[in-house]
Amino acid sequence: MQLPLNRLPAVKLARMLSAREVTCEAVTHSFLDAVEQREAEVRAFAWIDPERALNIAREFDRAGGLGLLAGLPIAVKDVIDTAGIPTECGSPIFAGRLPQADAACVATARAAGGYVFGKTVTAEMANFTPGATRNPHAPAHTPGGSSSGSAAAVAARMAPFALGTQTAGSVIRPAAFCGVVGFVPTRGAIPRAGVLQVSDTLDVVGCFASTVEDAALLADVLSMRASQGMVTKSAAPSIAWTDTPWAAQLTASMSEAFSRVVRLCSDHGASVRQAVWSDLFATLVDAQRTVQVFETARAFTDESDSARERLSAPLAALIDEGRAISAARYVSALQCGRACAGTIDQLFGGADVLLAPSAPGAAPHGLESTGDPTFNRPWHLLGGPQINIPLPRSITHSASDLPLGVQLVGRPGDDVRLMAAAYWLEQRLLQASA
Amino acid sequence: MQLPLNRLPAVKLARMLSAREVTCEAVTHSFLDAVEQREAEVRAFAWIDPERALNIAREFDRAGGLGLLAGLPIAVKDVIDTAGIPTECGSPIFAGRLPQADAACVATARAAGGYVFGKTVTAEMANFTPGATRNPHAPAHTPGGSSSGSAAAVAARMAPFALGTQTAGSVIRPAAFCGVVGFVPTRGAIPRAGVLQVSDTLDVVGCFASTVEDAALLADVLSMRASQGMVTKSAAPSIAWTDTPWAAQLTASMSEAFSRVVRLCSDHGASVRQAVWSDLFATLVDAQRTVQVFETARAFTDESDSARERLSAPLAALIDEGRAISAARYVSALQCGRACAGTIDQLFGGADVLLAPSAPGAAPHGLESTGDPTFNRPWHLLGGPQINIPLPRSITHSASDLPLGVQLVGRPGDDVRLMAAAYWLEQRLLQASA
Repeated sequence: MQLPLNRLPAVKLARMLSAREVTCEAVTHSFLDAVEQREAEVRAFAWIDPERALNIAREFDRAGGLGLLAGLPIAVKDVIDTAGIPTECGSPIFAGRLPQADAACVATARAAGGYVFGKTVTAEMANFTPGATRNPHAPAHTPGGSSSGSAAAVAARMAPFALGTQTAGSVIRPAAFCGVVGFVPTRGAIPRAGVLQVSDTLDVVGCFASTVEDAALLADVLSMRASQGMVTKSAAPSIAWTDTPWAAQLTASMSEAFSRVVRLCSDHGASVRQAVWSDLFATLVDAQRTVQVFETARAFTDESDSARERLSAPLAALIDEGRAISAARYVSALQCGRACAGTIDQLFGGADVLLAPSAPGAAPHGLESTGDPTFNRPWHLLGGPQINIPLPRSITHSASDLPLGVQLVGRPGDDVRLMAAAYWLEQRLLQASA
Repeated sequence: MQLPLNRLPAVKLARMLSAREVTCEAVTHSFLDAVEQREAEVRAFAWIDPERALNIAREFDRAGGLGLLAGLPIAVKDVIDTAGIPTECGSPIFAGRLPQADAACVATARAAGGYVFGKTVTAEMANFTPGATRNPHAPAHTPGGSSSGSAAAVAARMAPFALGTQTAGSVIRPAAFCGVVGFVPTRGAIPRAGVLQVSDTLDVVGCFASTVEDAALLADVLSMRASQGMVTKSAAPSIAWTDTPWAAQLTASMSEAFSRVVRLCSDHGASVRQAVWSDLFATLVDAQRTVQVFETARAFTDESDSARERLSAPLAALIDEGRAISAARYVSALQCGRACAGTIDQLFGGADVLLAPSAPGAAPHGLESTGDPTFNRPWHLLGGPQINIPLPRSITHSASDLPLGVQLVGRPGDDVRLMAAAYWLEQRLLQASA
């Protein structure tokens, strides 16, 4: 039986489109069918226009000769500017905002033959107050956030790709909760011009997709290294695993699944050892939060000073908290991040990558919170690449439909090695579930 | 004869203040006297409040126990947020804007015992349309820009320190035109939260001061490495000099003065050779401009979309130009910068630093332009540290009062080595003029 187009990997769709074995219109139709079936429940999109999408697809079919993205649709988080398409940042402050220029990442994706399929729901201004999106696997549960709609759209097969942003865990956590691949490249790899600033030090543009190869295709284009090919199929990597100093916060099922993943890596020939945390590295969680909150208060100065009544109470409180943080504490937090990044081999040892839980467990019940970023904060302050890999049922042993995810973390700049390890792990997990 | 306090180096003032050999009030009075004498002509300040400054100084004198900046005043470019002090960005769009939080760099300086002495005139939104500031050495000439008031305030001894920002040459060029030290650290060394974004890839916070040691004192605090001490007094550095592929644009006096500096370095035992430009490096000027203009169009989307009539015609045109730049051209420009940074030793050879002109010549006549950034663009895209060092009359052989400057450029991250070389060169220049 043939899978519907929207269930094929993006890399396969791109090959078929380039070979003209399928039309952009048919591909777009397939994703629009999924939108038709799922969107009323999932609520991933802040804006979508099926007719516009089909017109672009037909024009692509006429013009031909597209780039690496071959005419594929991309869902874009609504804090990323899109020319002539509303970009409202999940806040009434930005209601009706219609930028006239694409963000750099959107322009780059479009130049490579992608197009803006729709804008996805974000938590308020890429922070913590959720939008309307529900977890596609269980609508009473959060999809995670702040890139809520991007993760949910890919999980519900309503888009092959989505763009998101991460300041703490806004890509990795929703990817884990929704059961998709979420990739955050090394800080600075993808230009941020035209993206709402939350924390100048921490903000990173990231990618959602269904497979590691798909995420690498989009990330390669956006980080302008497409010619290098990000996924190299390599031998078993060396892995330092860690359930982190916050392991007591893991659910039993996450903890058990994580142990099974470590064992699977070892069984398949990876060199596996446990990472050792120094006292300095254990302060990364607090330090990341300090940098984020201090800088968020600066990024949203104008909104807070002139439109405070249109901020959610939690965001207004966060800004107040950020203003009250002393410069000395902020400087210490930044210094902690730099010191850890400068001595990162203490944690990695000789390993290629770290392996850690992506979240404390599955998506919590309720839509009033996007979940806990504790397991994301330390890696994000280090500034290196991070990727969530969803776990198959054979590993989770779960009775529920809610996914679990593990993440691989690389040294800053080591994106190619991280993606090779991620591909290796994804393939071993697929074998295990076959 | 005793020099007035405002003519002493900041490092000396800091030592005297810490030892309580002088009061903050007396120091502040001395700079306010200079403001009284020079500001009507120079117009360096967008905002200054002498009574407030004196009150802060007196409170410092009462409290004591200040940090490395010891109660010294700092002039702050008006694109950098200051809590409770107008921050209008040189644009009517921001008239009356009164942020309630200090930018991260201002908060850091204040935590180290500095205080905001005044806000300095910036070219419109840190771009190219000048404000009211005149060159302190010749009021019919531009002070350079966009950090016009910061350079002029330090040159006129109205402040010991000033903060600026640079996207192309907005620190180095006004420092050269005004005859002060201007230091741009490695991209990312000083946090930018609370600073107007012009180009996310390129914007850097920089420092103005009267001497290399003074600039290092402020930069050490802001880049959170104060304990390391940025100026090490080292032996003669190895220097690769270059008048760049744009040497034909240098004035005769700049060209001759530059040759004399090269000879002086050699005469004092520096290892000196000429840098060799590959074709790739020669494209850095165009590439920097492309990245800047493309990203500026994204940074000012809201201003352009909703307040276009309050932009200057040149800035509106620049935004239009940025919107019309193709993503492919933008990506090529970023790739050029990354490729050059990745092969920077081709240009540096084994040298510690590069030596180059800071500008085509002295400050041009007229106030309608801030001068030509061609000699700044290539270094700024590379992302490493840059410093302007003013030349004494014995080197410039100039009949006019207008200063000339040379710059040293370091590899990204090599700030300590750059400052050591800068201190060495500054001392040799002072010897030559003695």
